[in-house]
Amino acid sequence: MSAHSSLDILIEALRCLPGVGPKSAQRMAFHLLQRDQRGAAKLATALGHALEVLRHCARCNTFCEDEICARCANPQRDGTQLCVVEMPADLAMLEQTHSYHGLYYVLMGRLSPLDGIGPRELGLEKLLARASDGVVQEVILATNFTNEGEATAHMVAELLRHRGIRVSRIARGIPVGGELEHTDSGTIAQALVERRAL
Amino acid sequence: MSAHSSLDILIEALRCLPGVGPKSAQRMAFHLLQRDQRGAAKLATALGHALEVLRHCARCNTFCEDEICARCANPQRDGTQLCVVEMPADLAMLEQTHSYHGLYYVLMGRLSPLDGIGPRELGLEKLLARASDGVVQEVILATNFTNEGEATAHMVAELLRHRGIRVSRIARGIPVGGELEHTDSGTIAQALVERRAL
Repeated sequence: MSAHSSLDILIEALRCLPGVGPKSAQRMAFHLLQRDQRGAAKLATALGHALEVLRHCARCNTFCEDEICARCANPQRDGTQLCVVEMPADLAMLEQTHSYHGLYYVLMGRLSPLDGIGPRELGLEKLLARASDGVVQEVILATNFTNEGEATAHMVAELLRHRGIRVSRIARGIPVGGELEHTDSGTIAQALVERRAL
Repeated sequence: MSAHSSLDILIEALRCLPGVGPKSAQRMAFHLLQRDQRGAAKLATALGHALEVLRHCARCNTFCEDEICARCANPQRDGTQLCVVEMPADLAMLEQTHSYHGLYYVLMGRLSPLDGIGPRELGLEKLLARASDGVVQEVILATNFTNEGEATAHMVAELLRHRGIRVSRIARGIPVGGELEHTDSGTIAQALVERRAL
């Protein structure tokens, strides 16, 4: 194209978004400039502000604007249980169940050797230190049941057991409302293995 | 969620991007904050800068940083031909053919009644004024061959013919390298109707 430098720079900058290639970036730039300049201005401000004020909670590692997030600072929560999740979105899903009253640790990712994310990049030492505070009695692993989530749970469990900390994994099985006919065989097999006495 | 206000504001702001729903916005926000703060900072700056400096070329309506874009100001281009396209990306595709030396008019959209974009919202008066400069002898309609692009071409053609301006439409037919077996019947039918004497 010609001398549209600041347009080109914007299109290139939009490619830092996950899953956005050159075509989408171009479409996004045109949309923002042509149809939603107010939204674009808000986005620029929100990004700048978030980068400035957001940091990681010193206890649970989730995004927050203070040294310690409101949840970790809440004396009503049960400090003896520590639930490990991959992302803040997972934490939100667990909170929606209203059935867990312990604390959390958010890994902000998962082991992913192909992306160069090993135990060090994931900051597992911080989790080990958190779990060794003397108050935590059980670490509940709630990473996803994907290959990467499973590998992460496995490694975290190993590390914690070495330190004599009790570890558990949330249950795998048939979803509530799930029909066997429409459930994959791996899940059914696992539900059989992990059957509970009644 | 809890008191992550600037994170929530960022997630909400990302939804101004086309095709980005709540889940993608959340994923994008986490990615930017966790894995690409540099990219995020660049994006915020690029957005702000683009909003500040980009405007529409007074002649061809594309994005540019000056009153008139470099292409419109180039005396080498043939001012008697005016090619109408929907978006700057279409203009770029035509330029890549190196077979057109006239000027352009970029609609920055297409008629789309469902989205509330009629002739007025599309700013067709500006195109009519541009095409009536006394130099333009032929307006070549190169909007897409989608329903909306066709409707746009039809309306622009009507308006221009009313003013006695010669109008043409780029050809529809079998793509170069295209095989009849793999071409849809509508295209083949059109290629038959628009056959050329040899």
